[in-house]
Parts: sequence; structure tokens; C-alpha cells
Amino acid sequence: MKKSEITLTTLPTGQALTAPVFTFEGSDRNAPSVYIQASLHGSEVQGNAVIYHLWEYCNAHPPTGDITVVPLCNPYGISRKAGEYTAGRFDPTTGDNWNRTYVDFTPEAKTFKHEGDVASLKKAFRAYMLSALDNKIKAGLDTAQLIAARLQQMTLNADLVLDLHTGEVSDRHLYAPSYTLDSTQYFNVPFVLSIDNGFDGATDEAVFCPWWTLAQARNLDVKHFGVEAFTLEVGSQEMINFDAAKIDAEGIVEYLKHQGALEGDAIKTTMKQTVRTLDNYKTFHAPTGGLVEYAVEPGEHLEAGQVFARILNINHYGTEKCFTNCVLDYPAIAILRYSSAVVPEGAQLYRFFKK
Amino acid sequence: MKKSEITLTTLPTGQALTAPVFTFEGSDRNAPSVYIQASLHGSEVQGNAVIYHLWEYCNAHPPTGDITVVPLCNPYGISRKAGEYTAGRFDPTTGDNWNRTYVDFTPEAKTFKHEGDVASLKKAFRAYMLSALDNKIKAGLDTAQLIAARLQQMTLNADLVLDLHTGEVSDRHLYAPSYTLDSTQYFNVPFVLSIDNGFDGATDEAVFCPWWTLAQARNLDVKHFGVEAFTLEVGSQEMINFDAAKIDAEGIVEYLKHQGALEGDAIKTTMKQTVRTLDNYKTFHAPTGGLVEYAVEPGEHLEAGQVFARILNINHYGTEKCFTNCVLDYPAIAILRYSSAVVPEGAQLYRFFKK
Amino acid sequence: MKKSEITLTTLPTGQALTAPVFTFEGSDRNAPSVYIQASLHGSEVQGNAVIYHLWEYCNAHPPTGDITVVPLCNPYGISRKAGEYTAGRFDPTTGDNWNRTYVDFTPEAKTFKHEGDVASLKKAFRAYMLSALDNKIKAGLDTAQLIAARLQQMTLNADLVLDLHTGEVSDRHLYAPSYTLDSTQYFNVPFVLSIDNGFDGATDEAVFCPWWTLAQARNLDVKHFGVEAFTLEVGSQEMINFDAAKIDAEGIVEYLKHQGALEGDAIKTTMKQTVRTLDNYKTFHAPTGGLVEYAVEPGEHLEAGQVFARILNINHYGTEKCFTNCVLDYPAIAILRYSSAVVPEGAQLYRFFKK
Amino acid sequence: MKKSEITLTTLPTGQALTAPVFTFEGSDRNAPSVYIQASLHGSEVQGNAVIYHLWEYCNAHPPTGDITVVPLCNPYGISRKAGEYTAGRFDPTTGDNWNRTYVDFTPEAKTFKHEGDVASLKKAFRAYMLSALDNKIKAGLDTAQLIAARLQQMTLNADLVLDLHTGEVSDRHLYAPSYTLDSTQYFNVPFVLSIDNGFDGATDEAVFCPWWTLAQARNLDVKHFGVEAFTLEVGSQEMINFDAAKIDAEGIVEYLKHQGALEGDAIKTTMKQTVRTLDNYKTFHAPTGGLVEYAVEPGEHLEAGQVFARILNINHYGTEKCFTNCVLDYPAIAILRYSSAVVPEGAQLYRFFKK
Repeated sequence: MKKSEITLTTLPTGQALTAPVFTFEGSDRNAPSVYIQASLHGSEVQGNAVIYHLWEYCNAHPPTGDITVVPLCNPYGISRKAGEYTAGRFDPTTGDNWNRTYVDFTPEAKTFKHEGDVASLKKAFRAYMLSALDNKIKAGLDTAQLIAARLQQMTLNADLVLDLHTGEVSDRHLYAPSYTLDSTQYFNVPFVLSIDNGFDGATDEAVFCPWWTLAQARNLDVKHFGVEAFTLEVGSQEMINFDAAKIDAEGIVEYLKHQGALEGDAIKTTMKQTVRTLDNYKTFHAPTGGLVEYAVEPGEHLEAGQVFARILNINHYGTEKCFTNCVLDYPAIAILRYSSAVVPEGAQLYRFFKK
Repeated sequence: MKKSEITLTTLPTGQALTAPVFTFEGSDRNAPSVYIQASLHGSEVQGNAVIYHLWEYCNAHPPTGDITVVPLCNPYGISRKAGEYTAGRFDPTTGDNWNRTYVDFTPEAKTFKHEGDVASLKKAFRAYMLSALDNKIKAGLDTAQLIAARLQQMTLNADLVLDLHTGEVSDRHLYAPSYTLDSTQYFNVPFVLSIDNGFDGATDEAVFCPWWTLAQARNLDVKHFGVEAFTLEVGSQEMINFDAAKIDAEGIVEYLKHQGALEGDAIKTTMKQTVRTLDNYKTFHAPTGGLVEYAVEPGEHLEAGQVFARILNINHYGTEKCFTNCVLDYPAIAILRYSSAVVPEGAQLYRFFKK
Repeated sequence: MKKSEITLTTLPTGQALTAPVFTFEGSDRNAPSVYIQASLHGSEVQGNAVIYHLWEYCNAHPPTGDITVVPLCNPYGISRKAGEYTAGRFDPTTGDNWNRTYVDFTPEAKTFKHEGDVASLKKAFRAYMLSALDNKIKAGLDTAQLIAARLQQMTLNADLVLDLHTGEVSDRHLYAPSYTLDSTQYFNVPFVLSIDNGFDGATDEAVFCPWWTLAQARNLDVKHFGVEAFTLEVGSQEMINFDAAKIDAEGIVEYLKHQGALEGDAIKTTMKQTVRTLDNYKTFHAPTGGLVEYAVEPGEHLEAGQVFARILNINHYGTEKCFTNCVLDYPAIAILRYSSAVVPEGAQLYRFFKK
Repeated sequence: MKKSEITLTTLPTGQALTAPVFTFEGSDRNAPSVYIQASLHGSEVQGNAVIYHLWEYCNAHPPTGDITVVPLCNPYGISRKAGEYTAGRFDPTTGDNWNRTYVDFTPEAKTFKHEGDVASLKKAFRAYMLSALDNKIKAGLDTAQLIAARLQQMTLNADLVLDLHTGEVSDRHLYAPSYTLDSTQYFNVPFVLSIDNGFDGATDEAVFCPWWTLAQARNLDVKHFGVEAFTLEVGSQEMINFDAAKIDAEGIVEYLKHQGALEGDAIKTTMKQTVRTLDNYKTFHAPTGGLVEYAVEPGEHLEAGQVFARILNINHYGTEKCFTNCVLDYPAIAILRYSSAVVPEGAQLYRFFKK
């Protein structure tokens, strides 16, 4: 394993903001290349413990494919405390979510001109994207776009991309493009979100959407390009747990075996996996501001009508407004919830899988 | 003038977050109705001084059209200090820009079914939007969407909408849909941005885009609906200047006369107005992080190659990296600039009109 | 129970920042008067659930002493979100900790002139403090001082004061002036900090220090004044738990019975209480920045040399700097810990009672 | 000039937070040693431009005394943006003002045991402080204390210390211990605050208070130690102006000549200097929240009764509460003012010298 550094931006002090980059050189030039990063959102640090276990594995079992890993990939967000917590979700000047500012190459994918087979098309389009990205950086980008673009340069060179995130208070779940649903069975996650070809600025989308669009424009099966990208949510923010991380690392190892980037026979997860599309992934907004007692934790199943949260408005003590009970009119599974009891009206209190 | 209150959201204390609403009832039921708000971005408060002068005028010269005014329309943003300054540009939980979360009715405008003349179409589509907006609020929205939606309810009832903002350190400028370029000559602003029918979530767009789209879908001239909406940038953030505000108020008065919402003959501005489309409105990003000496102020003209800012990297003293000179390769007019000397790489240092 | 409102400060919108005030009038004019507040630090909301249970009790068992309760006593702090969490510990402009800006009357206590018995002395000194506080407010105070001063006016009128806080991730504990150690046995808390007569700006100190100093200056036993004040830490921040709150409320009820503000025979807690002075309450600072796995939870006992936290520096993977083990060289009990895994060097990682 | 780096703390990423340190070795071992830093508060960057000019001078005129300079001495604060501005005044977790956490050695100064002449006493007490500071760092400090302590190590080795700050919107002014009032005439500042031997945690106090106390404890004239320290406020925050910086640099050069750290005859400033003690330096707090039009700029003289600021409460339009005029009942000179028009009640609107 080799260590280098990438400069993501320059701080007002004139000092470079850098992230460490670790690379394993694979033994087989034909094996897929892999890119993994963690902590693009500063409070979502558990992925670094997952990476720790992954490295322990790779040191003992040298990979066949090249593997590039950037733990702590957004030092700007990671080091930005607000109180004891980490205000690492967006640029503090612009509000740009660090994971919504990647460059979109789907328009170019629709119109890309190239004659030749899939391998040569893949090579040409990748080269095009890298060159176009470089030009965008030179022409000037916002700070958040700049950091994303410099990470994106690394993701574009990889065939398999894993962006390790966490929810707020959350069970494990995986965002997977719908064409990868065979692959998802190797990850140790109970919940899978099957997503379509829609670009909203995230790391994984910036990888798979252009290839998917390129394939669609040519009536090709996107699987021919051998490119997959996932957002893997490995638990809750603001915490490190090495035992839990080991479970996620083991799933990633099986996935990489399945893809031929690690040696050995891949074994599917023993977890029961529930798969849903985005329109069955529901956000519940706080119907009033107040202080929330959460009655249901991520992973739990709810009946229709079951109270999963209760909002206290103690200044209305003695009236019916003192408590607001939160219920759904359909059965569901809680995937994640808000991480504070102190909520304004409209806060995203829970996210549910419709059963 | 009557005063009431609108509840925008409920705070975690259970207390309502409210904004005052002031209304003048017009003398002529056929005159256009007007809606004006200020300080959707919390640090952009100069519009409140403009409103002060406008009321002084309206008290002396009662309007013909109904006028609804919401100064301090976003108390959440206005009261959010960070250091001495006002962190009022976006929701502190989600990063949602307070002026990018309005509901988009252009999809419905494309397919809206209605038989009848323009007046009846206007009435029907307005009623549709109000009802649909109400349903969205009931179904649950994020905090920033909720505040915007409750303001949007008022804007949808008006024919003429002015959203008073400021730049950072900025000269006056006006965002105007291209079909209103006759109207813009009444405002006391030296710079006008002519914009197309593109929805990006802002107050003004949420008003004019649906009508414009409705007109386009029917091959109607959008002017028939009599709906206009503008973002008027009345100077720099974090300051109040009553003399400057009077100039802006006078321009608004002439515009409202021109539209028949106030009585009297409208007089065009004596200011020289420069009009540009958005593709001639250029952002200059800081090419490095550092400490910036701004050499050109908003309103000033630049030659190609003229140094308009110099970035000090004192930790590189003694090397050529100590200073970075900022230049353009075309002549331009500075419209606004960043408000701090302390900048990371990628910061939006200036915005220019190409000459 | 009656409800009113107190205005704490005026916001930049010109709107009053208010907190609700609830009062029970006691049946016995000779019974001590009580003041209870919660959430002076905005993220520490569990006290409001405690207050809920307390009111349920008081409604069923009317108090003998007057009881004034201000839940949500710092709406400025409670409504200040930063990300999902609550940035409610200090004034965002000045950094003033909301619980360190109370006015200090100990200098005046040392030199206060009065002839008469204890009851008349108490009355005179209380009147002096209230009048002096009023003068300070009129002369001009910082925002945080102003809010504190307006709460302090209510505390000065009470004999028994409870300020309900929480730790970060924390077990229950109580700050008690050393002369109240008989009283502490009625609270349902496992850990008691016995504190001396030292003023550092907190609610409880602002109540008991002046009386204690007045007593010391006159060689009186401070107990003669019948004034007690406590900071009661009822668990962890950012959460509401009604079952846990009931336990704390029951302890408060017994304490108020013991003091004669409620009717009935007081029963001491069945919890084992460990009492320590401040010099046996130790802060452990993070010896390096990094990502922390917390191995010991509040309430747990540690041996000397036991690893209670492990800090991951994954960018130093492969070197001995990758992990830093945290240990003490003495046996201890963990009282509270930092609430995030993401820590800079120097962060207050844990607080311990020395065994 | 040599450049090195000092590590101030370790970030959550495990990366060192460093500041550049520049040193000139003086030609005369008997000349006083000098320490200068800038930007301990992150938004106060103008001192870096002053340092630039100072270095240009020193490169042309090599110093006799050793000069150590740390521009950008608090990279944690400088790089912490909140909106476009710089939230660099206090630690975002604890609220600790970066310039209030230096270690206080005055208690030890009172009781320090040493036999010998002033030179040997100076050497011994300096060695004591350095050693004690090192022990404190090893024993564990809060992040803000740690950064201060590591800067303090450098200040303790110097005879002459300049801490370059700025006000908010401010004229130049100098905090000077009263025993240095001869020296202050060399600085190019119109306003001087003469301060007593009182420690409140600031850089300059941490230097001069221990020596002053040591002198007082022994009935020595503090001047015998040859130690002076100043906080020099070189204008307004959030800006860089090289022309203004040159004036300040020239004053510092004359001061250093006067002290023998630079060669040449020192010339006193041609500015009229007004000197006041702290009790004649008055803070005016906003009597209400609202939007402020500042009518008087720093440096201007006011008559008693003159309106220097007007607070708009537009939600009270039509009532006498719409405007609040701010006046003093004594003549004064404005030294600095708040930097935003958006203020809560209690904000420090202005600071004045009483005339």
C-alpha cells in the first residue's frame, strides 16, 4: 500500500487542504479498478473504521484489481465543529451540500460521438470526461464544486466506486442503481434502495449516470461497461464502532471478490435484504416544532397507526397542543431518524420503507 | 394600512415564528394588486428602509391597487447571528437557500386544462396553484420549503411582486424577466439582468415562470396575464442607509404608477441603465485561497487586464506565490464583490457585466 | 397554575424573545418559594420532560410554597440549530456561555450594611439585589447578560432554585453547595458534586454565593437564610425520555417535601450516592485529534490502566500513531463524555469521579 | 529571514494544524528580542499586510534584535467561514475567545523565590514560566488553551511583544500597559488605552502582567525587566488595505528603533494621540433589537445629545417604537462600532472615548 496526498482546495491562510490517498496496486491488469472514499459529510466517520478493516484484509490478501482509498476525503467538513458536533454537511458560505456538487456528464453522454467497440468507447468517454473535468476546474468553480471535482477525477478512473456515508441515527442501507441488484446481495446491508438514472449531484450518480446514459443512447446494456457505484450508509453519524465496521468491511470484501477485484469465491450476505424504489422511501416531516421523544428506532417495523414519535410542546401544557402523536396510515420499516430531540416544524423526523 | 401576522413555522420551543403583514386596500378593484417583501435573506435588510419610504408615500398618496407588504419576511434568517454578522442565507440544518425552495408550478402550467378567456384562465390557474400549494403544505414540507410556501401563498394572489434583496458589497441591480423590459426603466437601478423562463426556486421565478409557461403552452403573450415579478437588489448586505433607500423607493413608486397601482404619471429613471442577459453576467472565482485587497468597487468599469483584486499569501513571502493578481481578459463592469478579505479558493470574488 | 410570559430580549426583527412562565400559588405563606427552569443551554431539553411530570404531581397535590417554573427558559439557544443539532451553549456573537453571565453580588454581600435579625436581613439584602440588578439592566448589558439578568430577577425572589441541565452523554449528577449535603439525599441522582462558595457566573452560584458570602461576613450559618440552589443534570443532551424524567421528577418532589414546599413526608433516594468535591472531578482532554471509539459509558467504573477510549488516526495507518489508547493512572467512575466521535486535540473527552 | 512551522493542535482528521514562523536573527546579542503575531482572531487580517511592509523594511535594514513573526497565527479561526464572513473569534465548541485563554503566571510571580540581580531574576523567572507552561500542556488543556499555550511559549522568550488585531469597524488604537506610555508615542495610532496590571487571558497581558506583578512584589520598577507588550488594533476586520498597513508598519519600525531592536533614530508619530484609561472607554449597548443606521464613524467626535445611531423597528411602523435614537449624555469620540446593521438588544453597538 502506498500513501500520497491530494490537494482539494487552498484555505484562506494559503495552506493547502489535503486528504491522504492510499493505493494498492492489483496483481491483474484486467481486474476492475476500485475507488473507495469516506466522510464526504464530515460527521459521517464510521466509514473510516470500515476502511481500517478492509486494509487489514487487503494486507493479508493482496488484491487483483487496483484499489484507491481516500478516508477522511473532506477535511474541510470533518474539522468544522459547531458545538460538540460536526457541521460537515455543506459549505458554510454557500450552503452547497458537499455531496450535491459533482459535475454532470449525462448531457455529453447523450451526444458523445465515437466509433468502435465497447472497450474503446469506454476508454474514449472516460478520457473525454477527465479532460472536460480538468477544463472546468481551470475555468473556475465554487469551493464545494472544486473539492468534488478533484475527488471526481479519481472516481472517473475507477470501475467500482463506493462512497461510504452514514445516516443520522440510522440502520445500514445501500443506494444502488437498479442495474446492480445482483451485486447488492454481497453487501452486509438489510435495506437496499434501488435508484434510477437520475443525476442530483452525488458521488455515485456522477459515476454511474453518464455510463448509464451513454448505454441508453446507444441501446447498449450498461453492464457492458463494468462500472458500478454505490452509496453505502454504514450506520449513524458522529460515532465510531469497530465491531460494526467489521461487518460492513466483510460485505465489501465479498462484493469485491464477486467483481474480481479480490481473489476468492464470493459469498452472499446472510442478512435478509429488503429492496425498495425511491417512491416507496417516505420522509415524515415534523408536523409542529417541539421536543421529540422517539419511540421507534431504525430497523424496527411499525403497524399503521402506531405512535412512533411524540412531540412535547410544554408551553401549551394543559391543552391538547401539549402533545402531538406521530403516526403513519400504512405499515412501514424505520430506516433512519433525526438525531436531536429539538426540532422545528418541517424537520425530517424519520425516513421509512413502505411495507 | 392594516397590520396582521403570518405564521411561517413553529420553532422547537413550540412558539410560532411570525412575520408582520401590512396591507393597503386600493381604491380601484380593477387596479393590479401588489406584493412586496424584504429580507428573505437575513443579512439583506436595506429593503426595509426602502419599504419605510414607500409607506410614507402611500400614506400621503393612497394606492389604487391593493398593496401587501411583508418586511422582515424571514425572521428565522434575520435573527440568526454568527459572530457580528447575520447567517441568514440558508437553513442551518439542511443548507437550503431560503430563496431556492419555492414550489414550481411550471409542469402543471404546461398541461393545465381550461376553456375560457384570459381573465377566466388567470382566475382558474391562480385558484389551482393556491389549492395545490395548500395540499403540499398539508402533505409535509421541509422547514425552508414551508416558510417559502407560506410566503408564496401571498405572492400568488398578487399581480406585481417585488422581492427586495441586496448583494454582498453591491451596486443596485434588478433581475427582470425579459418580457418586462419596458417596466424596468421606471426603477432607479443602473444594472438590469434580463432573464429567461427558467425556474430555480426563487420568489420571483415562482411567480412569473408558471404564467410564462402557461402563455407559451397556449401561444399567448404572457403580458396578457398582467403578472410581473422582480428581484430588486437595493445595495449591500448588513447595512441600512435611509438616503439610498429613498432613491429605490422613488423608483418603485414610478413603477407602480406605470402599472396603475398608484395614481399619477410615471416618470422613467434618469439613471443610465445597462442591460445584460445571464450569459454575460460572469462570476470570478478566487484562483487561490488567501487575503484579498479589493481594488475595484461595484459600479466601476475595468479594462481587460486591469488588476481588480490582489490576493496575499503571506506564508509564501519571498516567493512569487506571495501575491496573485486577479484580471479579466475582457472589459467589464463590477456589479458586486465578496464581503470579506478572507477567502478560500473558489470563493465567488466578483460578479461582472461583460461590456 | 397560571401562565404568563417574560420578555428576555428583543430580536433584530424588533420582535420580543419571550419564555413562558408558569406559577403555582402555594397554600402556606410561610412555606419556601421555589423557582425551577430548564434549557438554559438549548440542547439540554430533558428537564422539560421532568417539569411535565412535576406539574402532573403538583396538579394532583397542590403545593404549600409558591412554585415558579420556566421551561424552555432560553428560546434563543433552543431554536438555534447547526446541522441537526442545537448550538445552544453560548451567544453566537460573543461566545458568552449562557450559564456564565449572571450578575455577581458577592462583593456587595461582603460589605452589606444592615441591622436586624436574619429575617429582616434576608428581606433587605434580597431587596438590595433586586434593585441593583434592575439598575444594571437599565445601564446596559450584553445580550447574554441581559437574558441571564431577567431570569436572575426571578431566581432572587425564590428560596429554593433548581436549574435543570444535562451533560453531553451523561449520567445524572447534581452540583450542590457543600452546606446542602443533607438535602441532596432526596434527589434521585447517583453522583453529587459538593461545591464551595466560588462564583463563576452560573444560575445556581448567582443564588447561593451571595447568601453564603453574607453569612460568612457575619459569622452566621448560611442555612439560616433558607436559600438553596442546585444545578441538576438529568441525563444527556439532545434527547427526551419521559420514563427517565419521571425518576428525576420524583426526586424533586421528595426534596420539595423535605423543604416544606410540598406536603407529605419526604423519602430519601434509594440510589447509592457518590459525593465528590470539584478537585476529585477530573477532565480528560483528547491527547490528539482523531476519531474516537468510546469504550466506557457514563456510570461505569474503571480500573487504573483500563482503556476507556481509542482514537483512530487512519491517515497514520501502518504506524504506531494509527491508534491512541486513552487510560487513567487511577480508578475512576465515568460521569459524562463528549458526544461526537470527531474530536480535535484538547477536546474534553470525559469527566471522571476519582474513586 | 528563516521560515519554520509551529504545530498548534491536531485536527479531527489527525492532521497537524500549523502556522508559519518567520525569524530574523539580530546582529546584536544585547538588543531586545521581538515577537509579533497577527490574526489570533480569524477575521482580523489587516495585521498580515502590516507584517508584509515590516518585512520589506527588515530585509532592507537588518535588525539588531532577534525578531520572530507569526502571521496567520490562528489558522483554525482564519479558515472558519460562516456565510461570507469569518467566524474566528472563539472556539466553536466551547465559546472560548481565542484571546482569553492564555495561562496566568501572576500568582507565581507574587511568590517567586529567587536571589540575584534583575538580569538573573529575569532569566530565572522566564525559565520558570516556560517550564511550567510546558507542564501544563503535558497535563492536558482545552483546544483553545492549547493553541494559546503554544503561542505563549514564543511570547515568553521575547522582550517586546506586539499582538496585531483589529476592531470591528474601527479606527486604529493601542492597548498599552500604563508603564509604557513613553513608548506609545512611536506608534502611528490616534488612540491609546492605558491599562493596569489586570489579567484577563489576552496575549499582551500574559506577557506583561507576570513581570509587572513580579516587580510589584519586590518593589522594583517593572521597566528594569525591559519587557513590553501591546495589542495594536490596526483598523477594521474582514479587510486588507496595503496603504493603511504601511502607516502602521512605519510606526512599529520607529518603536523598534526606540527600543534598539532596529537601527536608527526613532521619530515620534505626528498623529495627535488621545490617551484614556479603561474606565473612560465606554460601551454602548443596543437599547432594543432592530436594524441600525450608523450615523457616526470611528474617529469622529460627538457632542452630548447628538444622535449617532438610529434603530429601525419597521414592524412597529406608525408608532413611536418605529425609531430609537441613540445618544450619549457626554461628549465623546467613537473608536469602533458593530459591523452589521442587524442587532439584537444588548449588542455592543459602539465603543467611545469619553472626552
